[in-house]
Amino acid sequence: MLDFHVMSSSTLETFPNPRPARDFEITISCPEFTSVCPMTGLPDFGEIRIVYVPDALCVELKSLKYYMLEFRNKGIFYEAATNQILDDLVAALSPRRMTVTGNFSARGGITTSVTATHSKA
Amino acid sequence: MLDFHVMSSSTLETFPNPRPARDFEITISCPEFTSVCPMTGLPDFGEIRIVYVPDALCVELKSLKYYMLEFRNKGIFYEAATNQILDDLVAALSPRRMTVTGNFSARGGITTSVTATHSKA
Amino acid sequence: MLDFHVMSSSTLETFPNPRPARDFEITISCPEFTSVCPMTGLPDFGEIRIVYVPDALCVELKSLKYYMLEFRNKGIFYEAATNQILDDLVAALSPRRMTVTGNFSARGGITTSVTATHSKA
Amino acid sequence: MLDFHVMSSSTLETFPNPRPARDFEITISCPEFTSVCPMTGLPDFGEIRIVYVPDALCVELKSLKYYMLEFRNKGIFYEAATNQILDDLVAALSPRRMTVTGNFSARGGITTSVTATHSKA
Amino acid sequence: MLDFHVMSSSTLETFPNPRPARDFEITISCPEFTSVCPMTGLPDFGEIRIVYVPDALCVELKSLKYYMLEFRNKGIFYEAATNQILDDLVAALSPRRMTVTGNFSARGGITTSVTATHSKA
Amino acid sequence: MLDFHVMSSSTLETFPNPRPARDFEITISCPEFTSVCPMTGLPDFGEIRIVYVPDALCVELKSLKYYMLEFRNKGIFYEAATNQILDDLVAALSPRRMTVTGNFSARGGITTSVTATHSKA
Amino acid sequence: MLDFHVMSSSTLETFPNPRPARDFEITISCPEFTSVCPMTGLPDFGEIRIVYVPDALCVELKSLKYYMLEFRNKGIFYEAATNQILDDLVAALSPRRMTVTGNFSARGGITTSVTATHSKA
Amino acid sequence: MLDFHVMSSSTLETFPNPRPARDFEITISCPEFTSVCPMTGLPDFGEIRIVYVPDALCVELKSLKYYMLEFRNKGIFYEAATNQILDDLVAALSPRRMTVTGNFSARGGITTSVTATHSKA
Amino acid sequence: MLDFHVMSSSTLETFPNPRPARDFEITISCPEFTSVCPMTGLPDFGEIRIVYVPDALCVELKSLKYYMLEFRNKGIFYEAATNQILDDLVAALSPRRMTVTGNFSARGGITTSVTATHSKA
Amino acid sequence: MLDFHVMSSSTLETFPNPRPARDFEITISCPEFTSVCPMTGLPDFGEIRIVYVPDALCVELKSLKYYMLEFRNKGIFYEAATNQILDDLVAALSPRRMTVTGNFSARGGITTSVTATHSKA
Repeated sequence: MLDFHVMSSSTLETFPNPRPARDFEITISCPEFTSVCPMTGLPDFGEIRIVYVPDALCVELKSLKYYMLEFRNKGIFYEAATNQILDDLVAALSPRRMTVTGNFSARGGITTSVTATHSKA
Repeated sequence: MLDFHVMSSSTLETFPNPRPARDFEITISCPEFTSVCPMTGLPDFGEIRIVYVPDALCVELKSLKYYMLEFRNKGIFYEAATNQILDDLVAALSPRRMTVTGNFSARGGITTSVTATHSKA
Repeated sequence: MLDFHVMSSSTLETFPNPRPARDFEITISCPEFTSVCPMTGLPDFGEIRIVYVPDALCVELKSLKYYMLEFRNKGIFYEAATNQILDDLVAALSPRRMTVTGNFSARGGITTSVTATHSKA
Repeated sequence: MLDFHVMSSSTLETFPNPRPARDFEITISCPEFTSVCPMTGLPDFGEIRIVYVPDALCVELKSLKYYMLEFRNKGIFYEAATNQILDDLVAALSPRRMTVTGNFSARGGITTSVTATHSKA
Repeated sequence: MLDFHVMSSSTLETFPNPRPARDFEITISCPEFTSVCPMTGLPDFGEIRIVYVPDALCVELKSLKYYMLEFRNKGIFYEAATNQILDDLVAALSPRRMTVTGNFSARGGITTSVTATHSKA
Repeated sequence: MLDFHVMSSSTLETFPNPRPARDFEITISCPEFTSVCPMTGLPDFGEIRIVYVPDALCVELKSLKYYMLEFRNKGIFYEAATNQILDDLVAALSPRRMTVTGNFSARGGITTSVTATHSKA
Repeated sequence: MLDFHVMSSSTLETFPNPRPARDFEITISCPEFTSVCPMTGLPDFGEIRIVYVPDALCVELKSLKYYMLEFRNKGIFYEAATNQILDDLVAALSPRRMTVTGNFSARGGITTSVTATHSKA
Repeated sequence: MLDFHVMSSSTLETFPNPRPARDFEITISCPEFTSVCPMTGLPDFGEIRIVYVPDALCVELKSLKYYMLEFRNKGIFYEAATNQILDDLVAALSPRRMTVTGNFSARGGITTSVTATHSKA
Repeated sequence: MLDFHVMSSSTLETFPNPRPARDFEITISCPEFTSVCPMTGLPDFGEIRIVYVPDALCVELKSLKYYMLEFRNKGIFYEAATNQILDDLVAALSPRRMTVTGNFSARGGITTSVTATHSKA
Repeated sequence: MLDFHVMSSSTLETFPNPRPARDFEITISCPEFTSVCPMTGLPDFGEIRIVYVPDALCVELKSLKYYMLEFRNKGIFYEAATNQILDDLVAALSPRRMTVTGNFSARGGITTSVTATHSKA
């Protein structure tokens, strides 16, 4: 039977913005995000929400899905994961404005979310 | 039995704004929007929401319904469809202000929405 | 048995604002609004929501109810009905600020709302 | 402008049951029912819900809509309206089993619903 | 058996603000407010919501509860009750800022809310 | 101004069942029920829900409303109030079957409901 | 660009029941069902829900998706579509028990659902 | 300042059933239940729901509240707590029938509830 | 950093039923279940819900959590996973009655759940 | 069996902000907060919500959980608890901006929340 293995080199792919002359907003929700707590080795679960105004490029959704899968077995804290996703998407898309929010499931009766924003200078 | 065929020339019809002296807002929701993914040939589903301040003209709702039906068997991406609907409505109505939002169903566990706005210079 | 007949001359009644020295806001929701589509002769349904800051006068609710009943068998479009209600209430109350919103039920899979605002010069 | 007049002779139309060999259930909800209180002359609002197992005939939905419209300006109590609709549908369809429920809006802070059932002997 | 009698002299009691150096906000919701309609003698029901920034004093909640009970058998309109509660609380607490909202139950199919605000000069 | 006084002799009024040949069910919800706790003298709040199959008589809703108002300033426990309402309605209507449920608001962090049923022998 | 064309010969595929010795239940919801009204030529929308106890075979979900797509441009009534899907699935799977429900979107203010059941003799 | 100490001898108090001739049902919800996990020493949270048909006695709610408080700092598993509450209430009330349900908050991403029932022989 | 590795030999642990003389029910919800689709190698997500009446043994929740984690990177179909979990829990606990339900996230616009039950002979 | 005792010296622990160059926001919800009313000695329940922009330090969640547990048996008013938590977190983290909100359960039919904010000068 087929099991899951971390892909070694997934790439965020892009396509040209169909209306670069207009500032418009794209919202993407990935409710099936999961990573691993680096302190306990146990899985974390959450939703990653991305809101951005594209400049020359939009993110291709299938490649975004494979990018998210790379976190499945990786040990990383909430704050680092959210900022990492923002950094990687900014590097790939160079958007006019982008906000990434991670809403994570309760652990020990405590729920956490992290929100980070980038604006083109 | 009667089947569905794309109409060849549906037209967005209009009627005169009953209170052109006043800026007022009209919100229209079309939750039964469907088009076709140009990469896979499979149907996409979503809700198109239009918010506008009319100038001389309002959109007639029955013609808007037929306009939306033209996307049923057309291959088009989310970002292009939302911007196209905004462009077509702006061309037909020349509104003082208009926002079109497309909220599309999940594909591969990922949900997307696109929002574009036009303002009269 | 008693049937419904349009009242010939219902009047919006008022009472003095109990705190004219203070700007305060009154919100009134009429979820049982119904009128008739002038194109098809079929009933339309919706909710009329009124938000206003009174000046010298407040609207008496029972007279407002009878005022709304006059639309029951009248042929009128959504955009016209919402603006007409705003005009009639402004004429009766001369409020400092008033917004009227009509949220109308789906027709042909499309839902519409109309919002109009008046401010005292 | 076009106003509303009670149709003089609307008829419940039917079409043949497409699978008479099988007992299957049809549920129809009419959330835009309105009639008139015979004591006050004021409108009542509610939802009529019909659940039935057809025998030889199914009710055609457009004729059902026109049938419901006949109550718009008629003076009738909740209990009588619900039972009347059941009687008329049983007469037109002779179903194997049918339940009609009327869920009516609050009056004086009190909400009422009425449910009546018919079974073929 | 014990019945209800209007208390003759309930008093809004206060306690010192534990952090007067900081502007912070207190929200209090009283969903069991009831008074009497002065036109019909019938009870009205609603929720009173108080939002304020205390200065030197905070309201003690048990005394607030008894204060609200004084309206139980009193004839008063929605607009007057909401403004009266604001006036009484401002007199007792002298807050930096206070908003009182009354959300009242539907009467004759119409729902009303009233919102009044006071700011220290 | 008009205040509230307990009516001395309200009566549950009835009207003839319009379909006595058929067993059908009537559900009535009174969400604005209030009485007084006989131990503390403080008001209780709740919803009284009545479900019954009428025999010869149905309860008239306006008289039911006035009947409910008699509890407003009366000291009575939840269990006694629910059973008393069932007894009084059974005495007035002699229904084929009746259930009365009282859903009462939280007191001290604890919520209570009481359900009592009568069936004609 | 790629448009949508009805596939000429989609087939419901199956795989062996992994626990034929045990009666267990599978529920499948297809909320993106759409067909065409044979009277108006306009699209209908709805959710098809399938509940079954497999015998020797389970339905493969990807082939079920393609089967549902064949209705996209086909003219068919609600009652016929629901019964047809039940017949086709029973023919392909020969399940121990199966129920198909179609919940269809409102048309003319009226909502309809159809439920049909098959049991192995 | 006043802190919390476990009461040494709280007693479940009762009062006579006001309608012992009739089987009626009382539902009590205590959403503020908390105890301590005997393995970790950390608090657990949950809702205890009690449904019973009284025989000669009903439970007095204030004493029930104090009874529930005794679990606040006690180490006990979910399964034991739910069964213990049922045993104690049965001993105090000797009800005709009683069900106790404990719905406990998530721990480690897993939520648990326990339901136990007693019937008089 | 710490990553996730499938544990080689997790064991479902048990503890003695605290009230074996009484039939009582335990419900456990695991909303963070994830496995891998054996056809595509992509992750599946779902909630596993277990309802059982214990005999001599109850399942210890921490060991259940580790048991569920073993599916994280395993390729398995919905129908097989649900039945496998039931088989493993029945083998470990020998319960009087047990039902396992898997509610899985949408794939290709289609949502699936599987329910299997075991009863002690 | 293990019971609960107030820890004598729990400490709020911190870890370095992973992106100090960027202003980003962390939201933490603790829905299982409980303390003791200093007037009655009875428990209070509520949710503490913390929103902050970290500077050099982030709060470690496990230490935050133990910090919250110290209130379990402590007598303190709502207004003081909310401000105390803000003061302690500001002292430990020196955040760029922080808001603490306490939403407390109903007492005597009245619900209260308190919100306090700190900004770095």
